[in-house]
Amino acid sequence: MDRDSSNKAGNELDTEVVNARRGFLGKSAMLGLAGATLGLAGCKEEGSAAKGSASASAAAAAKGGGGHEIAPGQLDDYYAFTSAGHGGEARIIGLPSGRTLKRIPVFNIDCMVGWGITNESKKIIGTKADGSLEYKTGDTHHVHGSYKDGTYDGRFLWVNDKIHSRLARIRMDTMECDKITKLPNVMGFHGIFPDKCDPVDPKINYTTRVFCGAEFHIPLPNDGHDVNDPDKWGCLFTCVDADSMEVKWQCRVDGNMDLVATSYDGKLAASNQYNTENGHDLTSMMSAERDACVFFNVARIEAMVKAGKFVTIGSSKVPVVDGRKAANGDPKSALTCYVPVGKNPHGVNASPDGKYFVCSGKLSPTATVIDLSLVLKWFAGELKTERDAVVAEPEIGLGPLHTAFDGRGNAYTSLFLDSQCVKWNVDAAIAQYKGDKNAKVIIEKMDVHYQPGHNYASMGETKEADGKYLNSGNKFSKDRFLPVGPLHPETEQLIDISGATMKLVADHTAYSEPHDGIIVRRDVVKTRQIYNMDDFPLAVKPENAGITRQGNKVTVRMMSVAPNYSLPEIKVKKGDEVTLILTNHDKVEDLTHGCAIPTYDICFIVNPQETKSVTFKADHAGAFWIYCTHFCHALHLEMRSRLLVEA
Amino acid sequence: MDRDSSNKAGNELDTEVVNARRGFLGKSAMLGLAGATLGLAGCKEEGSAAKGSASASAAAAAKGGGGHEIAPGQLDDYYAFTSAGHGGEARIIGLPSGRTLKRIPVFNIDCMVGWGITNESKKIIGTKADGSLEYKTGDTHHVHGSYKDGTYDGRFLWVNDKIHSRLARIRMDTMECDKITKLPNVMGFHGIFPDKCDPVDPKINYTTRVFCGAEFHIPLPNDGHDVNDPDKWGCLFTCVDADSMEVKWQCRVDGNMDLVATSYDGKLAASNQYNTENGHDLTSMMSAERDACVFFNVARIEAMVKAGKFVTIGSSKVPVVDGRKAANGDPKSALTCYVPVGKNPHGVNASPDGKYFVCSGKLSPTATVIDLSLVLKWFAGELKTERDAVVAEPEIGLGPLHTAFDGRGNAYTSLFLDSQCVKWNVDAAIAQYKGDKNAKVIIEKMDVHYQPGHNYASMGETKEADGKYLNSGNKFSKDRFLPVGPLHPETEQLIDISGATMKLVADHTAYSEPHDGIIVRRDVVKTRQIYNMDDFPLAVKPENAGITRQGNKVTVRMMSVAPNYSLPEIKVKKGDEVTLILTNHDKVEDLTHGCAIPTYDICFIVNPQETKSVTFKADHAGAFWIYCTHFCHALHLEMRSRLLVEA
Repeated sequence: MDRDSSNKAGNELDTEVVNARRGFLGKSAMLGLAGATLGLAGCKEEGSAAKGSASASAAAAAKGGGGHEIAPGQLDDYYAFTSAGHGGEARIIGLPSGRTLKRIPVFNIDCMVGWGITNESKKIIGTKADGSLEYKTGDTHHVHGSYKDGTYDGRFLWVNDKIHSRLARIRMDTMECDKITKLPNVMGFHGIFPDKCDPVDPKINYTTRVFCGAEFHIPLPNDGHDVNDPDKWGCLFTCVDADSMEVKWQCRVDGNMDLVATSYDGKLAASNQYNTENGHDLTSMMSAERDACVFFNVARIEAMVKAGKFVTIGSSKVPVVDGRKAANGDPKSALTCYVPVGKNPHGVNASPDGKYFVCSGKLSPTATVIDLSLVLKWFAGELKTERDAVVAEPEIGLGPLHTAFDGRGNAYTSLFLDSQCVKWNVDAAIAQYKGDKNAKVIIEKMDVHYQPGHNYASMGETKEADGKYLNSGNKFSKDRFLPVGPLHPETEQLIDISGATMKLVADHTAYSEPHDGIIVRRDVVKTRQIYNMDDFPLAVKPENAGITRQGNKVTVRMMSVAPNYSLPEIKVKKGDEVTLILTNHDKVEDLTHGCAIPTYDICFIVNPQETKSVTFKADHAGAFWIYCTHFCHALHLEMRSRLLVEA
Repeated sequence: MDRDSSNKAGNELDTEVVNARRGFLGKSAMLGLAGATLGLAGCKEEGSAAKGSASASAAAAAKGGGGHEIAPGQLDDYYAFTSAGHGGEARIIGLPSGRTLKRIPVFNIDCMVGWGITNESKKIIGTKADGSLEYKTGDTHHVHGSYKDGTYDGRFLWVNDKIHSRLARIRMDTMECDKITKLPNVMGFHGIFPDKCDPVDPKINYTTRVFCGAEFHIPLPNDGHDVNDPDKWGCLFTCVDADSMEVKWQCRVDGNMDLVATSYDGKLAASNQYNTENGHDLTSMMSAERDACVFFNVARIEAMVKAGKFVTIGSSKVPVVDGRKAANGDPKSALTCYVPVGKNPHGVNASPDGKYFVCSGKLSPTATVIDLSLVLKWFAGELKTERDAVVAEPEIGLGPLHTAFDGRGNAYTSLFLDSQCVKWNVDAAIAQYKGDKNAKVIIEKMDVHYQPGHNYASMGETKEADGKYLNSGNKFSKDRFLPVGPLHPETEQLIDISGATMKLVADHTAYSEPHDGIIVRRDVVKTRQIYNMDDFPLAVKPENAGITRQGNKVTVRMMSVAPNYSLPEIKVKKGDEVTLILTNHDKVEDLTHGCAIPTYDICFIVNPQETKSVTFKADHAGAFWIYCTHFCHALHLEMRSRLLVEA
């Protein structure tokens, strides 16, 4: 830990100390092919996992685990709701056990539940004119929950898709996606965060908006014009209504955006900007020595929209206001405030006391602490410069990305290049920034394995941050698990942060990419265990079950009760358009049935009292056994119907 | 455990003992809606998981876990290769930790790796005339590995798709699917097993065939004829060449098939038959008091094929021989031998000593032990009846499904209805069957949670069965995990079977459906960690990188080296057909890059030294940022190219 004892005062880089390790962050080294692997210096320590003898592993093993094991039949203390990166799903993990309790298909196709296959899920995902799915890929990055009184209320989760700029909502009672909204005129939609309060009416002390940051500059609208003139491209911050999931407004910014944070009083949303240069290649994106965190004055933006002072872009009807610097010269009326922070920041996080946002430098070894009351002062015209809202900027290590909090005044920042988690004290950093040379900012650094991205603490993004667990989502596992070919698993390392020193509890594997997540106390989550049949307009009941035909459109209304489908045989003609509606009449908890139709590419499940449907063209003749895919009964294998398609 | 002490001699059902619990297995109760939930009697014990107070859970917790924990940085002892049911994938689990080391996409679409999205994966899965995927659903049931000298050789895994009757192969060096074969004239393809030796040439002491059982009777061919005449339908057993993955031959049987087992000497393959009645509804499938295990004389079938004594069906050119009873009256020339076993059996497993196959009764509380030397005797005309090959048929409990072995003479059978695993001794069962009333057949019964399907033991399907671990794949978890809405996770319970009594080690969650698997010693598995660039014919190298056009077909040859793509910009015209070929030139282990193209529904990864390609029509104009999806470098977020589609 020698390298970590250099807690120098001041907000300038201490080049002597860190130069040896961060020299490779110079542009030339990063841009050339030869220098490219230097960004992963940690990989040089790699060994064959089969050997299992890496010293780092052995050391970690010695620390490991005790006292956090969840025995068979015991329940976990926390839920972690995580995104799955370019897997396109969300996941529910039990902690501390690391058990994957559920995959929630969102932007991906999942033939286990029939997501992307049933009519209901296709409607949520969106279809082309021919009825096929608009998209079958997605890249989920951030999961956040709805708030009330500054903590989770267990109603909703939101998760974004970076590829196709979509925001999805997940109902927390059923843990299923119920809405997907595509953001207009946005590309590289990365950060999201729900608000925690209305900016004007403090009685609306719960989430009613979700804010969305976008990384990429694109032509506005992106319809083929200006494709060769990137200087004209732009980037919009988006506000989505939490209930209707409709886009409320957008705000154009200078530079780009990345992660998003919101204040507990509802007045401010913010996004870190790694490309204030508006650059359109790697060199230009890194040219400035400082980037920024852009703050949005939510009340002012909404007042401006209400006053009709907005434009629309292309075919979108969403009001767009101008948050660029040139249009916001007077702080007293400005919609946005650009606070300079360390170079190419990646991450902005709100402290649970409601006072600060912390931006990590990524290419600067610093975290920038911004006092929200000073940002509000700037918006009131009472602060000299935006930079004056910064109250600390400690050097914390190399490649700082994201910061979590324990509710006891400490921050935990992931250090991508150092492969560490650094624990530091916010008040000490503020004291140091004011000139206290004795302030002990860095409390501890702990190796993680390896190259951490997001980290997040139990209830750490709420006022109820409890400082029990920290999860480090690591991008490389190298020698930590049995080898499984060229693609190793990634890891979610669980760290006990309740004591004076951090303790590594477990290495949990994760199917790429374990991007971000939240850790929620289990009492917050109240799920439904059985559906209400009447919630489904198409529900099949004995009085409407059967087969009906209108021209060449055949509707098959079927019920399931273990181990039977209500129709032993379904007869149609080749060329018919068949809609099969299936209601599961079983009432026993978890007595789910499946429905597969061979050669017709249909597979989905129906949970107890649930209804789902599929529509397909009977385009080839023959006999096709419809069978139950979800084990339901001793006679599950015998649970069948048959589709007879007559030539 | 009172109910388990009834180890009666004889092969008849002891109706007095079991009637109370199996009364509901009568046809009338099972067929009616009212009685249907009785099949899951165990569900009545359910409680709210949130309470966490179920007595079964508490009892299990008291037993749990100690001594089997894998600390952070420690490696597991075993790989489990498992199927994922209607999730369509295969999985690699580390044991005893339960860590999911990898998901292997096979019949599903996986946008993390680009499975179903890249040209290479689409070619393996199969496409329609318009280039879209033929199928996007799958239902994987059984995973088995290739053999040499009676144990795993680490070359291949095979897994089946029940929905669309496909057999897939997975290379064990890269752990990726490399071939998928569709079986002709088969539906409900359920059981698979590789052979372990050539039936004629003992020097070919390794896997060269994979045998496939089919459940459903269908018209032959299934082209629209005979759809209303199920009595004319038939069912084929299929042999696939392990190397070419081409179908070698098929054999028509009476009744249906289900699971498959093969003998160590290569002479016999077998499949249990739950529908010897050729029934086409639930009632008729259960009408017979006994069903069968059908044995295939592999050498004779292949000699007959070689002699040209076969037919073909429809457009398929695969030789089909007749294994029905009517055509096989003389044992000395018979291709098949139908050994009567307990009613509606589900499961046939080979004992590691090579002597026996065990069939479980499912609707009979028995396991039937068949002596393979006696089956060979029957084929030699030296055994009076097929039934004389049975050497034991102990009563073991209710709803017996699958049997695993510990290599010490003990068998472990899953009891679906009893929610138990029963450990019983094969030699004792044989002695009891011969009349030894003092034979102690049942050694122990252990509750599992709940309703187990497949179980499998470490190396248990090889001559190296080591009797260390048993995995019980349970269909219901009920109160064992935190609730996550109407659909609970399923469970893989790990049991230590090395001692005198079974010990529950862990409750591992599984995303439905954890169907079947094998547990393999870690030294058997030898993976590659880096690809060989020259294995990819399309590999992009500096000398051929760039953009070329032929008419409206544009080929983009791009390289990746962290944090750069070799082309900062790709310009095409609306309407062009674009093929993007990407080779990852990074050589650092696990330094994988991704490639997403917003609005074009493209997302895939390239591992170090790997090449992949996608082809798409540039059907909408605009600027689209191609970005790296797989975290690769501190400047991962900045790793981009842009696709400019000019109107």
